[in-house]
Amino acid sequence: MFDRFSLRQALTTHPWSGATQDGDDKFHEECAVFGAWNVPDASAIAALALHALQHRGQEASGIVSYDGKKFFSHRGLGLVGDVFSDPRVMAGLPGANAIGHNRYSTTGDTLLRNVQPLFAEFEFGGLGVAHNGNLTNANTLRRALVRRGCLFQSTTDSEVFIHLIAISLYATVEDRLIDALKQVQGAYSLVVLSQNALMGVRDPLGVRPLVLGRMPGAAENDATGWIFASESCGLDIVGAEFVRDVEPGELVIIDRDGVRSVRPFTPERPRFCVFEYIYFARPDSVLDGVPVYNARKQIGVELARESAVEADVVVPVPDSGVPSAMGYAQESSIPFELGIIRNHYVGRTFIEPTDQIRNLGVRMKHSTNRPVLNGKRVILVDDSIVRGTTSRKIVDMVRAAGAKEVHMRISSPPTRHSCFYGIDTPERSKLLAAQYDIGKMAELIGVDSLAFISLDGLYRALGHKGRDAAKTRYCDACFTGDYPIPLADHDAEFGPGTA
Amino acid sequence: MFDRFSLRQALTTHPWSGATQDGDDKFHEECAVFGAWNVPDASAIAALALHALQHRGQEASGIVSYDGKKFFSHRGLGLVGDVFSDPRVMAGLPGANAIGHNRYSTTGDTLLRNVQPLFAEFEFGGLGVAHNGNLTNANTLRRALVRRGCLFQSTTDSEVFIHLIAISLYATVEDRLIDALKQVQGAYSLVVLSQNALMGVRDPLGVRPLVLGRMPGAAENDATGWIFASESCGLDIVGAEFVRDVEPGELVIIDRDGVRSVRPFTPERPRFCVFEYIYFARPDSVLDGVPVYNARKQIGVELARESAVEADVVVPVPDSGVPSAMGYAQESSIPFELGIIRNHYVGRTFIEPTDQIRNLGVRMKHSTNRPVLNGKRVILVDDSIVRGTTSRKIVDMVRAAGAKEVHMRISSPPTRHSCFYGIDTPERSKLLAAQYDIGKMAELIGVDSLAFISLDGLYRALGHKGRDAAKTRYCDACFTGDYPIPLADHDAEFGPGTA
Amino acid sequence: MFDRFSLRQALTTHPWSGATQDGDDKFHEECAVFGAWNVPDASAIAALALHALQHRGQEASGIVSYDGKKFFSHRGLGLVGDVFSDPRVMAGLPGANAIGHNRYSTTGDTLLRNVQPLFAEFEFGGLGVAHNGNLTNANTLRRALVRRGCLFQSTTDSEVFIHLIAISLYATVEDRLIDALKQVQGAYSLVVLSQNALMGVRDPLGVRPLVLGRMPGAAENDATGWIFASESCGLDIVGAEFVRDVEPGELVIIDRDGVRSVRPFTPERPRFCVFEYIYFARPDSVLDGVPVYNARKQIGVELARESAVEADVVVPVPDSGVPSAMGYAQESSIPFELGIIRNHYVGRTFIEPTDQIRNLGVRMKHSTNRPVLNGKRVILVDDSIVRGTTSRKIVDMVRAAGAKEVHMRISSPPTRHSCFYGIDTPERSKLLAAQYDIGKMAELIGVDSLAFISLDGLYRALGHKGRDAAKTRYCDACFTGDYPIPLADHDAEFGPGTA
Amino acid sequence: MFDRFSLRQALTTHPWSGATQDGDDKFHEECAVFGAWNVPDASAIAALALHALQHRGQEASGIVSYDGKKFFSHRGLGLVGDVFSDPRVMAGLPGANAIGHNRYSTTGDTLLRNVQPLFAEFEFGGLGVAHNGNLTNANTLRRALVRRGCLFQSTTDSEVFIHLIAISLYATVEDRLIDALKQVQGAYSLVVLSQNALMGVRDPLGVRPLVLGRMPGAAENDATGWIFASESCGLDIVGAEFVRDVEPGELVIIDRDGVRSVRPFTPERPRFCVFEYIYFARPDSVLDGVPVYNARKQIGVELARESAVEADVVVPVPDSGVPSAMGYAQESSIPFELGIIRNHYVGRTFIEPTDQIRNLGVRMKHSTNRPVLNGKRVILVDDSIVRGTTSRKIVDMVRAAGAKEVHMRISSPPTRHSCFYGIDTPERSKLLAAQYDIGKMAELIGVDSLAFISLDGLYRALGHKGRDAAKTRYCDACFTGDYPIPLADHDAEFGPGTA
Repeated sequence: MFDRFSLRQALTTHPWSGATQDGDDKFHEECAVFGAWNVPDASAIAALALHALQHRGQEASGIVSYDGKKFFSHRGLGLVGDVFSDPRVMAGLPGANAIGHNRYSTTGDTLLRNVQPLFAEFEFGGLGVAHNGNLTNANTLRRALVRRGCLFQSTTDSEVFIHLIAISLYATVEDRLIDALKQVQGAYSLVVLSQNALMGVRDPLGVRPLVLGRMPGAAENDATGWIFASESCGLDIVGAEFVRDVEPGELVIIDRDGVRSVRPFTPERPRFCVFEYIYFARPDSVLDGVPVYNARKQIGVELARESAVEADVVVPVPDSGVPSAMGYAQESSIPFELGIIRNHYVGRTFIEPTDQIRNLGVRMKHSTNRPVLNGKRVILVDDSIVRGTTSRKIVDMVRAAGAKEVHMRISSPPTRHSCFYGIDTPERSKLLAAQYDIGKMAELIGVDSLAFISLDGLYRALGHKGRDAAKTRYCDACFTGDYPIPLADHDAEFGPGTA
Repeated sequence: MFDRFSLRQALTTHPWSGATQDGDDKFHEECAVFGAWNVPDASAIAALALHALQHRGQEASGIVSYDGKKFFSHRGLGLVGDVFSDPRVMAGLPGANAIGHNRYSTTGDTLLRNVQPLFAEFEFGGLGVAHNGNLTNANTLRRALVRRGCLFQSTTDSEVFIHLIAISLYATVEDRLIDALKQVQGAYSLVVLSQNALMGVRDPLGVRPLVLGRMPGAAENDATGWIFASESCGLDIVGAEFVRDVEPGELVIIDRDGVRSVRPFTPERPRFCVFEYIYFARPDSVLDGVPVYNARKQIGVELARESAVEADVVVPVPDSGVPSAMGYAQESSIPFELGIIRNHYVGRTFIEPTDQIRNLGVRMKHSTNRPVLNGKRVILVDDSIVRGTTSRKIVDMVRAAGAKEVHMRISSPPTRHSCFYGIDTPERSKLLAAQYDIGKMAELIGVDSLAFISLDGLYRALGHKGRDAAKTRYCDACFTGDYPIPLADHDAEFGPGTA
Repeated sequence: MFDRFSLRQALTTHPWSGATQDGDDKFHEECAVFGAWNVPDASAIAALALHALQHRGQEASGIVSYDGKKFFSHRGLGLVGDVFSDPRVMAGLPGANAIGHNRYSTTGDTLLRNVQPLFAEFEFGGLGVAHNGNLTNANTLRRALVRRGCLFQSTTDSEVFIHLIAISLYATVEDRLIDALKQVQGAYSLVVLSQNALMGVRDPLGVRPLVLGRMPGAAENDATGWIFASESCGLDIVGAEFVRDVEPGELVIIDRDGVRSVRPFTPERPRFCVFEYIYFARPDSVLDGVPVYNARKQIGVELARESAVEADVVVPVPDSGVPSAMGYAQESSIPFELGIIRNHYVGRTFIEPTDQIRNLGVRMKHSTNRPVLNGKRVILVDDSIVRGTTSRKIVDMVRAAGAKEVHMRISSPPTRHSCFYGIDTPERSKLLAAQYDIGKMAELIGVDSLAFISLDGLYRALGHKGRDAAKTRYCDACFTGDYPIPLADHDAEFGPGTA
Repeated sequence: MFDRFSLRQALTTHPWSGATQDGDDKFHEECAVFGAWNVPDASAIAALALHALQHRGQEASGIVSYDGKKFFSHRGLGLVGDVFSDPRVMAGLPGANAIGHNRYSTTGDTLLRNVQPLFAEFEFGGLGVAHNGNLTNANTLRRALVRRGCLFQSTTDSEVFIHLIAISLYATVEDRLIDALKQVQGAYSLVVLSQNALMGVRDPLGVRPLVLGRMPGAAENDATGWIFASESCGLDIVGAEFVRDVEPGELVIIDRDGVRSVRPFTPERPRFCVFEYIYFARPDSVLDGVPVYNARKQIGVELARESAVEADVVVPVPDSGVPSAMGYAQESSIPFELGIIRNHYVGRTFIEPTDQIRNLGVRMKHSTNRPVLNGKRVILVDDSIVRGTTSRKIVDMVRAAGAKEVHMRISSPPTRHSCFYGIDTPERSKLLAAQYDIGKMAELIGVDSLAFISLDGLYRALGHKGRDAAKTRYCDACFTGDYPIPLADHDAEFGPGTA
C-alpha cells in the first residue's frame, strides 16, 4: 500500500520523535475501505464509517463522491475527524454515492498524493478506487507500465490498478477491472466507484476482509441503498444491516439493476488473514461469521489451558490484550485486574527527550496501577511481540510497581516472518521471534516465564481441530512462512525463499 | 474557576457541534495543578505530569517556569500534547522550578487570558499561581477589589488570589499569601511559585486533592527535588516517590532550606470530595490513602449486594464504569463482558447533522458488541446519571443490539445538587435526579430496572460504617445538599438555601 | 495554463470577496519559469528569482531540484515568500540544479495538483517541466492521449507535454521532448530538468519571453553555472549575467558538455507578445533588447503627441501607469504629480461588504491625494481598460477629490479580443472595447475625454515605423484579432473566426 | 509604547531573519489610533481606517467596540487585513462605536497582551484606550502603582493610563481621565471609548497627530457620526469629512449631547513632530493644515537649492524618497527617473542565508533598473540615514548597475539623537550621524558626495523663515537634541543630559 522503506525512515528520523513517543511496536493493518451506493449524504455516511474503521489506518483519509453528474474528492493527512471536520469540506462532497479510505501512513505534503481513494478521468469517465491489501507483483507491473508510457503519480502499489484499467482494450468498466485483476497478484479488497456502478471485490484467497450491507429505506426513490465496508463495525455505526461477507474471488457489482455477482477467477481454497482475529479487527466486528471478541476470549482460554502458571492476578496490556486476558482469567480462575492504565489523551508528538527525561523511562501511553501489582505474581497478557521493545518497557514498569513475578502470555504464536499482504511489519531481522528462541526472548524481555499460544491452540480457538497444513483456511504466513500467494517482487529482488 | 455560564453557552452554540458530537453528560473536574522545585528540566517534567493529569482538564494548559533569574510562561488552548508539542516552546521554559495547570474549558482566543497558571509581577517580584477548585465568595471579593482600583484581566475566580496578594500590607510572599487565603472562601488546592519558594496549599476542608512527592537524586547539586501534583498518578509518570497528601488547611513551603509546613487556619473536620473516588480521579491514583481503583471495584461489590438482579451479563459503560462493573460481576457471579466498545480516535469536531444523520442516531464514541448483547439480559454499570441524555442513548443502542432486558446500575447516589467547589455541573434544574424519582428516571432512560448505590453503601465501599452526618469526612453535597462551605456569592444572588 | 472557467468562477464566488476587494481588472500574465544548472543552493537561487518574478503569477509556486541522485519537489499555494518560508522546506530541496514556476491561479487544496513544475518518473528517469504560455490544441491532444490510456492528474494544458514525452518512441530525453514539441501548438516558454540536462525552449514564434544567464564562478568545480528565467530581472536578483534571449523556436540544452542549441522547427517570423512591454514585464527587465521602462516612457511620449489635451497635472494610476505618465508629462510639459496613492499593505481578503460599506465605495488599494487633485484639470494615465469597472471607480475617486476635469489616456490600444497564448483575459463579451466605441467608453467611465495610443504609435514607441501587418514582429491579437497561431481547441468548440 | 529592548532582541535573534531579509533601517512610527462614534458598522469602519493607517504600525492590530450594552474586543498579531479577515471576527465586534489601534511591534503569543486597544472593566464600567506616543515618566509611575498593589498585565507604557484611571478618586470617567493625564509626561494622542462617550486627546505639545472627522448622514437616528484618526487619510478611506485637527492639549468629548472641548492644561507652545512630514505620515494626509506630499516635494526643492550637483538623473529610493526626488528634479531640471524598483510581494520571512546567498548580497525589496543607471551620474534621494546599512547596500546596487557617479541627497537633517516620544529609533550610538561627520559618512556609504537638508531649509520647506530656537513650533529633537518634554525615566536611569 505504500513505499514502506521511505515511510519507516520518515518516522524514525522525525525530529520530534523520541524516547517518550511510544512506538507501539505492533503489526499494523494498513487500510480500511468503504463504499455507499444510493444513500443520501453518502459522504457523511462514509466519514462516519471511516471513523469507526479508524483502527485500520490512522494517518490519512479520503472520500470520492459522485452526485450523478460529477465526481468530487477530498483527501488529507490526519484522523478522519480532522480531515472531514470542516463543514465546507463535506459540502464539497455531494451525492448519494461515495467511496472512502483510511490509510496507515505518513507525514509531509509530498505524500498527500499517496492518500486514497485514487481517482482518475478515463476515456469512459471518472473512476475512484480504494484498496486494502498489498500487491506482490506491483513493481514488476509498474516497470512494464512505465515502459509503455504510463506516468505514475504516487508511490503506492495500488496505482497499478488504475493504469491497468486505463490501458485495457475491453470496453466496459467491469471488463476492464476484471482484466486488471487478472494481472495482479497479492491481497486486495477493493471498492470501486464509477458513474454507473459501485463494485467490491476480494482477491481469490480473500486475505483481507470486506462485507456487504444494506441501508434500510435509505434512498429517496425507495430503491435500496448498499454499503461495502472492511469490517461489520463500519455497517453498525451508520445503521446498515449486515448482509454477508463478500466472498474470496467475488466481484459484487451494484448498479441501477440491483446487485449481481461475478466470479472471474478459478476457485481456490480461501486463506483469510488469521491476524485479523488476533489484533487488527475491532472486537465488535464479525468476520467470516466469527465474532472477533469471542475469538479473542477463546484464545485466552486456550492459552490458559496450554500455559498455566500460578499467579495472583491476570493483567491485560490495554487495550488489545483485554479480551484474551478475560478468557485467560476465566479459564484459570485467577482474578482479572486492570493493572495497567492507558492514557487516551494524546495530542501531537511531544517533549524532546533530554537526558533527564530519557533516564526516567517515561511512558506516555501506559501507567501502572500500583495497588493492583505491588507484591503480586502477575500474568501479563498481550496480543503479540514484534520487536520486543515495548514488552520490555511494560515489564519494567510492572516490576517497578512492585510485582514479585511477571509471567507473560501472548495470544498469538511467535511472529517470525514479514507480511507481504497489506500489513506493515518490520523486516524479518527485526522480529524478536525470528532471532531468538522463547527462553532467550523471556530473558530479553525480563519475565519469569513467557508463553505463546500454539498454532493448533489458535486454530482450536477459532473452532477448528488444529492446523492442518494441507487444508488450512487461514493465511498464517507471519507465524509459519507458508505464503499462499507468490512473492514475485520480493523474490525478484532478494531471491526465492528469502521471505 | 471560570465564567461557567458563558462557557456553557459557547459549547452549546458551537456551530459544528451536533447530534453526532456526543456531549458526555458527566460532571467535570475542572482543573489539575502541578509544581516542581529543584528538578532539572522542570517544565518538561511539568508537561509530562500535566499529560498524566489530562483527565482533570482537557481544553487548556499552561506552565510557568523560573530559572533563578527570570520567569517564563506559555499557555494555550488544547491538549497538553498540543500546547507543548513545539520544541521551541519547551526551550522557552527553562529552569529547575515550574508550576503547571490543566483546565476544563473553552474556545476562542479571547479566553486565552483565562488559562492558568496566572502570573504577575509584584513589588516583591514575579509570582505564578495555579488553582484547582472554586471560590464561593469570589464575586464579593472581586467587587470590593474593583472598587479599590484593581483591574481584572480574566473572568476566573482565581484572579482574586493575585490581587489580594498584591494589595496585602504584609512584607513576605508567604505572609501575603496567608493574608489572601484568610479572605477567600471555597475549595482550593493551590500551587504557587515565587523567586524563593514553591508552595502548595489545600483549603481547610481539603475538598480537592493535592499530593507531595520527591524526585530521587534529581538535582545537579544533590539537593532534593520536590513535586506537587493533584493526584499521585502525576508523580508516577515522572518517577517521583509519593511522600504524602498535603493535609487539609496545610501550607507546604519548599525553599532553599527544605520543606516546612504552616497551618494558618483553625483545624476543621476535613471534607474531601467523594466524587473524586467515583469518577474524577484516575483509577491508578491513591487519594488520602485509598486506591481509587479498589474503591471503584468495591462500590460495584456494594452495588451488587444492594441491587441484585437476574441477568446474563454485566456490561460496563466504558471507560469509567469498568472497575465498578468488575466488582459487580465478581460479587454477583454474573459474567463480565465488554458489550460496549469505545472508539478512541477523536480528531476535531465532526460532521454536521443532516436529517439523515440525525435519524441514524449515530454515536461517535461508543458502539455495541452485538454478539455479547444479542438475546441477553444485560446489567449496564455506569458511574452517574447527570441529565440522562447519554444514558438514554446507550440503553437504546444496547436494545438495538438485541438485549432482551436492560438493568442499569449506577455507582453513585442520585446527583440532585450542583457543585460549587470546582466541578462543572449543570444547573440543578437540569439534573435528572433533581426532577424525578427513580421509577420515573427508569422510564425516561428506558430500562427494565434502575438502581443507584445508597449513600451508606458508598461510605461502606470506602471503608466506613455508613454515612454519619455528624462526622462524615467527605463532601457529598451533590447527593445530599449538605454544603460544608458557605455559598456567599450564590446566596447573595439567589437567596440562602436555594442551591 | 489552467482551467480558466472554473478558476474564474472560484474567484467571483469567493464568499469573502466583495465590493471592497478590488478586483484589479487587468489582463494577467499567467506564469513565470526559472531554471538553474550547476549552481550551489540552486533551490534558494530559484526561490529568490521566483520572488523577483512574482508579478508573473502570485498565487502558487513550486520548485523541483536534483542533487545528482534524486529529485525533490515542493509546491504550494500562495506567494513565493510563503511557500518557501520554512527552512525545512528549503532543506528538503537540495542540489545544484533546480527549476521553478510561479502561477497565477486558484484556491483550494484540490487544485494543488495543478501547481507546477510538473514532475514524473519516466522509464529514463525523473523529469520536471515548467511552462509559461498556453497550448491551443491541448484539448485535442488530451482526448487522444486519454483514449490511449494516459491518466491525467491535473486540469492544466501543460500536462500534455509530459504524456507526449512518456509515450514517445524516441530514446533520449532530448528527442522525446522535440517529438512532443512538434505535436503541440500554442505559446510556450518551457524549462525542463532531467538527470542529465537543463533545457530551455521557446515556441517557434517566441510569444512568451525566456532569457539565458550565467552565474559568475558559481560552481564548486569551477564549471560555469547557467540560469534560465522568464525575464532578465530574474537574473539580476541572483547576480547572474545576462547572456542573451533564448530565440524563438530554439531549444537550449545545458549539460556536462556545456551549452548547445537545437532548432527543431522551420524558421518563422517571430511574434513576441507586445503586451509584455505595455504591462506584464517588470520595468527593470530588458526583453529582446528593449528596456521595458524605456518602452513605457516612450509610449507615454507618443500618447502625448497623439492625444494632447490642456490640463494642469498628469497623474498615473499606480504602479503600472507611472512610466507612461512620466513620458506623457515630459512630452506635454504638464507637471507629473502623484495624485493617487497605492496602499501596499494587503493581508488576506478583507471585510464583508455591508450596505454601509458598499455605499462608501471604499477602495482598499488606492486613495486620492486631494491637495494635488482639488480644482485641477487632471490627465489620468493608465495602461489598459479591460472591463472598465476599476477605471470607473478611479475616475469617481478623482472627481470626489475635487478634480475639475478628468482626461484619461491609455498606454495600449483598445483591447478587443481575448488572448489564447497564456494571458488570463475575460471572455470577449466582457471587454469594454469589444462592445463600445471610444465615445461611449468615455461616457461609461465618466471622463471628459478618453484616448488610447494607436497601433502605429505603439509600434513607433518600440522603435518601428508603425505596424506593417505583413511583417509585424509582435503578437498584438488582443488589439487586432490577428492570431498568429491557430486556435484549434477554440475553433473546434466555437467555430472558426469566433475568437 | 512597548518594551523596546526585548523587542529589538527578538527581532535581531529571529532564527529566520538573515542577510536577505532587508531590515529597512528607518525610524518607525509606532502606532495609529482611530475612533468612531454613532457610525453603523463601526468596527468595519475602524478596520478600513486601520488598513489605511497601516504604515503607522504593521505588526499588530486591535479593535474594541461597544453596542450600547456590552464591549467586544479582538486583537491579533499581523496586518490589519489578516487580523480582521475572518467574517466571524467582524461579526463578534458589533455596535456603532469602536476604537482601533495599529502597532509597530513584535512576535510571539506572549506579547499578544501588549496589543492595543487596552481594555478593562472598572467600577464605572468598561473602558477602552488606544495610545499613540510614548510616556517619558512611565517607569516612575509604574513603580509607584505596583507598590500600591496594581498588577500590570503588559509591558507597555500605555498601561499606566488605565491604572491611573482605576485608582483615581474622581467620580466621572472624564475627571478620572484628566486626573490621569495630569500625572503623565510624554507624547500621546489617545482615543478612549467608554459606555457614554468617545474621547480624543493630544498631549499639551501636540507631538503626535490626531484629527477629527464627521460621517455625513451616517447614523440611523440622523444624529451625526464622528471619527478620530491619527491622520486625515484615515478619514478619506471611510468617506468622512475632515473637520479639524484636535489641538495640542485639547480633550474632545463626544457623547449624546454632541461634541465639546476641554482644555485641562496650561497652554504651551505646540511642538508637532517634524518627522511626520519627512517620513512617517502618508503623502496624501494633511497635518496641521500642511499637505504632506507638498511638504516633501518642497523639501526636495530646498535640497536642490542647497546642495546642487551636476548629474544625469535624479533617482528616488522608493517609495518614501519619491516626492523629494520629484522636487529635486524639478528645481534642478535634471530628469527624474525610476532607477530603483521596489518589489511589493513579500510573504513571510524568507530563505536562510547560506554563504552562497550572502555573497550575492541579494536584496528582496529593491532591484535596479539598469538601463536607467548604466553610465550615468546619479543623484540618489532618500528621506534619512539611520544606521547607514541600507544606504550602503543601495549605493552598491546602483554602482553595480553601472552608475558612474553616485551623489546622495537626504531630505532630513542628520539624525543624531534618539526619540523618546513614540518613534522606534536605535540607541544613539547606532546612529551613523551621531558618530561621524558628513565626510566620513559619505565614505562609509560609498558615495561621491553626500548632503542633508539643513534645519533652516527644512523649516523653509514647511513655510517658515528658518528655525528659530526660541519659538520653533516643531519637535526636532532627533536632529537637535532639544527635547521639549522632560525625559524623567531616561534621566533617572542614565543621568540628565545623556539622551
